[in-house]
Amino acid sequence: MAGGTKRLPRAVREQQMLDAAVKVFSENGYREASMDSIAAEAEISKPMLYLYYGSKDELFSACIERESTRFIEAMSVGFDPSLRQRDQAYTVVKEFLRFVDEHRQSWKVLYRVAVGTQTFSHFVSDSRKRVTEMVTELIRAGTTVEGARDIDFELTAVALVGAGEAVADRITEGDVDLETATDLLVGITWRGLKGVGTADAGLD
Amino acid sequence: MAGGTKRLPRAVREQQMLDAAVKVFSENGYREASMDSIAAEAEISKPMLYLYYGSKDELFSACIERESTRFIEAMSVGFDPSLRQRDQAYTVVKEFLRFVDEHRQSWKVLYRVAVGTQTFSHFVSDSRKRVTEMVTELIRAGTTVEGARDIDFELTAVALVGAGEAVADRITEGDVDLETATDLLVGITWRGLKGVGTADAGLD
Repeated sequence: MAGGTKRLPRAVREQQMLDAAVKVFSENGYREASMDSIAAEAEISKPMLYLYYGSKDELFSACIERESTRFIEAMSVGFDPSLRQRDQAYTVVKEFLRFVDEHRQSWKVLYRVAVGTQTFSHFVSDSRKRVTEMVTELIRAGTTVEGARDIDFELTAVALVGAGEAVADRITEGDVDLETATDLLVGITWRGLKGVGTADAGLD
Repeated sequence: MAGGTKRLPRAVREQQMLDAAVKVFSENGYREASMDSIAAEAEISKPMLYLYYGSKDELFSACIERESTRFIEAMSVGFDPSLRQRDQAYTVVKEFLRFVDEHRQSWKVLYRVAVGTQTFSHFVSDSRKRVTEMVTELIRAGTTVEGARDIDFELTAVALVGAGEAVADRITEGDVDLETATDLLVGITWRGLKGVGTADAGLD
């Protein structure tokens, strides 16, 4: 920082630009977001923005990459094979919904904006696939049912991830509190895991 | 039909154009679908297509309207208050997945193409809202749990609809058979309804 406050390290400045871009993209969608508004939000000049990220496409791509990495990292933290099954289900759901609650713009950029583009929707598919694989393994590890097939595990995970995404959408809309949503999803997840303890899961 | 086979009634011709448009939109997305390719698919001239549907926007809008009406109608058929709770859950899920399986293009146009557009995504939100309301009422009617709140019913419905959409996506990809998917979703729905009979639902 020898140059004073105006000469930020490159890495810091890059993150600030991405922060601004995620905000503008999440609020306006890809097509309506202008490089002007992103530069203004980041309090830098538009040429500077172009110097760092050659085009709106590249900038959006960098946003999606950062946000999906953050998302996958947050989810990975929740996975801990040393936990009891029920605690594991709770931890995964809690980490997931907390991430969404604390990073509403990330969620919107990934699951509202990128998902609707031809060029970037595969980032969302990839994130979803990785999370679904994690959940599949979680279900497989915790199941004592005889004769369950791979497709049963995988499809249960698909359903639970779908349920999670739908609830997450409601959280970003701000009309559901985090604790209610977590308890509800844990109930469904837990019943999806078909463990003991269904009696205290869910609607009560 | 006095004019012979070439002079189709207007209503029939309109449906043929919409069939062609749904096919082309579902395969290519909104932006990549051209009026030329839709006219070719419908085996009519492009001026004729424009005569019936003034613009690509209007044509897409007509597609979305028809498909979301069909979807809601198919779902409504499944709702029958005279059924036992478990049979009701089974019927709703079966009607839903059968609709998706038989109308893969409808599903793709609504939940892949329209959902990613700024102009048409509200059609999908509206469909989803109506289905979620139906499911909320179904859950409310079948719940014997004391002290459940509106948000518990609604959020459970949100989660189940999300699970259903995720499984439906897999069906349109053709990698899951209808019966497996129905059994799995019924299990999850049933457990979501928190009725009796959890022991035989789900993974087994």
